[in-house]
Amino acid sequence: MNIAVFGTGTVGQSLAGRLSEVGHKVVVGTRNVSDTLSRTEKDGYGNPPFGVWLQAHPFVEAGTFEQAAAKSDIIVNCTMGHASIDALNGAGADNLKGKVLIDIANPLDFSKGFPPSLLVCNTDSLGEQIQNAFPELKVVKTLNTMNAWLMVNPALVPGDHTVFMSGNDADAKDMVKGILNSFGWENHNIFDLGDITTARGTEMLLPIWVRLYGALQSPMFNFHINVAGK
Amino acid sequence: MNIAVFGTGTVGQSLAGRLSEVGHKVVVGTRNVSDTLSRTEKDGYGNPPFGVWLQAHPFVEAGTFEQAAAKSDIIVNCTMGHASIDALNGAGADNLKGKVLIDIANPLDFSKGFPPSLLVCNTDSLGEQIQNAFPELKVVKTLNTMNAWLMVNPALVPGDHTVFMSGNDADAKDMVKGILNSFGWENHNIFDLGDITTARGTEMLLPIWVRLYGALQSPMFNFHINVAGK
Repeated sequence: MNIAVFGTGTVGQSLAGRLSEVGHKVVVGTRNVSDTLSRTEKDGYGNPPFGVWLQAHPFVEAGTFEQAAAKSDIIVNCTMGHASIDALNGAGADNLKGKVLIDIANPLDFSKGFPPSLLVCNTDSLGEQIQNAFPELKVVKTLNTMNAWLMVNPALVPGDHTVFMSGNDADAKDMVKGILNSFGWENHNIFDLGDITTARGTEMLLPIWVRLYGALQSPMFNFHINVAGK
Repeated sequence: MNIAVFGTGTVGQSLAGRLSEVGHKVVVGTRNVSDTLSRTEKDGYGNPPFGVWLQAHPFVEAGTFEQAAAKSDIIVNCTMGHASIDALNGAGADNLKGKVLIDIANPLDFSKGFPPSLLVCNTDSLGEQIQNAFPELKVVKTLNTMNAWLMVNPALVPGDHTVFMSGNDADAKDMVKGILNSFGWENHNIFDLGDITTARGTEMLLPIWVRLYGALQSPMFNFHINVAGK
């Protein structure tokens, strides 16, 4: 399929690289392509700039949000949560209509330092805000509760562990399930929580995620739901 | 030890019964003892009223919050989150001074129906509110992320699964760890997240907990943190 990945950070790179690897045609969308490619500094975690990553991934293209969305069947939102609605507005309504949006963004607020709080939570969520702002998108929230490299390679953490899914459209969730399978997620570890309002629950896992990250000094962990009788 | 359990609902009954079973002298605290004992109706989940439970547990006493706290070395807060501060005020400052408070309450808001939202979250938590309101208490938040019967009998869910702990006082956390051990929790499943501000993370697990409960149609599940290399 043709897939647009919005966002050029670690999550965007991880998703774009893996989607390309499993056979999709991937265009990474960014606000301003030449600005993004001209950056030479590493990010806050020591990762190389997007331009360096792109040279190492010759089958992946870069374009504006509009160009990427125009060519896509599916859009993957890997932007920072505070910038997601703007990025989707930048894509143009006609380029979004009827498409599946895989929403991986979290509404993290780093403005008061670490650990971050959430820009929206409790009675609303970023997933719902996106679905409400773009009712013709079929939003499926998933993969937002773990490290970027684990998202596309669940075997990095041993044993069974869980990826959650929230969304209003059953066919869109089936399509996303197929993509998760192609990353290595087995069906019994994919937990469909229900409609998009359940995204409140997964986005609200972030506060404990950052504390676990701090305590473990490693992002290579994940939640697993152990159920009696299973 | 002498332990006061505040709250007469399912969580209070579960904790009081088990603490008595493992050898502690337990007084359950409630606002008005005769009112509580005169109730004859089952609760919303079909559990018998507290008076019936108390008759079946002859080694457990009932008293006012003040009476229960006065006799106790440790207090276990099993009240509804919206009523916790009032209950502790009812105990009287002199009866709280220097004691360990095991805080199991969650600030659930059912006023808008099901699923509940949280009365406080994101940049604050009930655990912190209690610690700030009663600085001479040593608050340890724990057990608030699972079903009441599972709290005191982790074997109800098979395999390894996690109980979190948050608090500012290392000795108090060690004491609580011992109590968790006596319930059957093994040390490698007790996860100390850090100071009391980490209670934000565990209280914010409740929104996904209630959705998992809805999807599984059973409360007999728990979170487990799977870590690479462990």
